[in-house]
Formats: sequence, C-alpha cells, structure tokens
Amino acid sequence: MSRITTLEVVTRQRTELVDITAGIRRLAAGSGIREGVAHIFAPHTTAAITINENADPTVVRDILAALERLVPQRGDYRHGEGNSDAHIKASLLGSSLTVLISGGDLLLGTWQGIFFCEFDGPRKRKVWVSFTDSG
Amino acid sequence: MSRITTLEVVTRQRTELVDITAGIRRLAAGSGIREGVAHIFAPHTTAAITINENADPTVVRDILAALERLVPQRGDYRHGEGNSDAHIKASLLGSSLTVLISGGDLLLGTWQGIFFCEFDGPRKRKVWVSFTDSG
Amino acid sequence: MSRITTLEVVTRQRTELVDITAGIRRLAAGSGIREGVAHIFAPHTTAAITINENADPTVVRDILAALERLVPQRGDYRHGEGNSDAHIKASLLGSSLTVLISGGDLLLGTWQGIFFCEFDGPRKRKVWVSFTDSG
Repeated sequence: MSRITTLEVVTRQRTELVDITAGIRRLAAGSGIREGVAHIFAPHTTAAITINENADPTVVRDILAALERLVPQRGDYRHGEGNSDAHIKASLLGSSLTVLISGGDLLLGTWQGIFFCEFDGPRKRKVWVSFTDSG
Repeated sequence: MSRITTLEVVTRQRTELVDITAGIRRLAAGSGIREGVAHIFAPHTTAAITINENADPTVVRDILAALERLVPQRGDYRHGEGNSDAHIKASLLGSSLTVLISGGDLLLGTWQGIFFCEFDGPRKRKVWVSFTDSG
Repeated sequence: MSRITTLEVVTRQRTELVDITAGIRRLAAGSGIREGVAHIFAPHTTAAITINENADPTVVRDILAALERLVPQRGDYRHGEGNSDAHIKASLLGSSLTVLISGGDLLLGTWQGIFFCEFDGPRKRKVWVSFTDSG
C-alpha cells in the first residue's frame, strides 16, 4: 500500500516561499506514522523545498532577494522560456528534503518551517510526501 | 541483505550534467521494490546529484553556465589542485537526493530528470542507490 | 521505538565546517543498524549539513570563502538580526542529508566527510540522526 500523499500549493507571485509546515504536519497525522521520516518532494523543475525560519517574514524576503541577485531573471541564458533563473534556483535549493518524525509529529527546530519555493509562478503546484516507518 | 546498487557514469567534459534517469529506473525495476523510496548518492567530492528539466538541453547549459559565473574555475582559492570550484559546486547542489517510488516505478514530475553533476571531469564515476520499502 | 539520536556540536567561529563523520559513525554503530540509511538533520535555521573533502582543510576554507563572497555578512538585508547571510547559506547547502549504511557502517566515498556547517556561531548546536533499516 502506497503511503504517498499530496499537498496542493497555490502560489501568487513569480517567486515566493510558501510555508507548508502545517500542511505536512496534517499529512503526517493522517498517515498514522509514529516513528520514521517524511520525504518531501517537489515534482517541478522551477520550484524547490527548503527549511528556514518562519517566525520573521523578513528572512524569507532576504532569501528571495539574494537568489535574485545571484541568479537574476534577466540574463545571458539560452533556454527560450524566460525562466532559466527559476530552473537554476530550483537546483540550488533542491527538490527533496527529509524530515524526522517521532511520537507521530514532525521534528523541527524551534524556528524551523518547511517552505515550498516557487520560482516561476503564480501557479498551482503539488508537493508529494512519502512516509517511511522506522518503528 | 543489502539493497545498495551502483550505476557507473562516464563523463566526457570537465563540467557536465549527465541524465541518469533511465539508469536509476532500471535499478529500481531490478530491485523489485513496489512502494518506497530511492536514495541516490554521489560518492565523490567534486560531483553532485540534482533534478531538473531533461526535455530541453538548454536548461542544463544555463545551469552549468550560472554555476561557472558564480563559482569560476579560476579564482582566489587555497586548495592546490585547481578544482576548488568543483568542490564548492558539489556542496551547492548536494550529494544525496531522495525520489519516491510507487507501483514499482520512480515518481517524477512531467519535466523532471535525474542528473549526475560532473564538476571535475572527465572521469569514471559511480552513483550509489539504496531502496527502502515503505509497503 | 524511536531510533532518533543526537550529536552535540560546539562551534568556535562565526562560520565553520565541523567534521562530524566520526560522531555519525559512532551513532550508527550504537544503533545496531546493519543495512539501511542514516538521515542527518540540522534543527537550526542558520546552519546546514554537507558532504565534502575532509583530507585537505583548504577545501573547507575555499567553500566558506566562496559562500562569503556570494552572500556577504554585510549587505542590503531586511532581517534585523545581522545574520541574514547565515539563513541564506543554510538554504543553499540544505538542512538534511541521507547517507547509505551497509554492513553496519556508513558508506562514503574515499575523500568524503560529513560536515556540520555553522554560519552564525559560535554556538552549541545539535544534529539529529535517524536510522531506517532496509534489511
């Protein structure tokens, strides 16, 4: 039996970090897993998953601004769709992330949240989550 | 019994992204796994694993060009082997990646392929893949 | 029963890569796992986990210098705590990493070590490690 579940994410900007911590937590609770891990995966080539601070929203703004400075939307790119920067940012931040689960809940540091990283929105996106028991 | 398998990758350029999706898919089929995950690992310090678009080859070109612009081969480095940029790029893209498996096949987004990232080739390289059942 | 274990890391600089390979190896041995994976997780928003060369210390110096060049400590940031660069570097290198285990030991390439990446130290930090059997 597959334990893969899906979270729908609607993004509203071209680049945006959407806090999906509550959504992933809800999927974990629904899965019935007690001890193990959650594998979180973005099935897109212009989006990523990252963990960072979700208390002060200026952190997310600084992350997006730094990525835009390092990999600007307009540049000397070959790919003809105008979203090369989004592909590059996706590989820099990464498509997959593993979070530990204990006592049925995600284990995160005090300031940590899980973010869906949109780099070529706005769009309707998906996040796939698979749970593996280690119990 | 170990479920670790190895994919051999021969790279032909100093920096190159080699599409290993079909190879990983073949290992998954051979493993007999139905539901679970594939952990894909590059056992090298000047190479990485990433997921990005494998339909239009200009995407890969733009990723490599952006990495070269951000971390040029020639620079003010201390490491004496002339491949400091390759080590830095390896850490930026990452050594490990987890892909979900369902119904015996890798689950990837429509445009996603799995790439071995060579940053100090050409060389003979290895990719290690471990399968974990969640069934 | 939870198989999550903790490694304590004391950092001594603002930015520093601390080799935690021996510590992770000790946790693996203590867990009794024979075949599977170790999920290594940094529960902090200004730190990360990476794999790179641990033979020649100039590699680590070059990685830290490149990150500082790309994302300087002083910059046009909004976050008021003076550590925006640390948050950005944490997302670039990533919070989680998966390492394969076979025959009871970590599988790493010849030159690979596992590093805790401190970007806002010195501090007392933790690394969480979860083991999953695939045996």
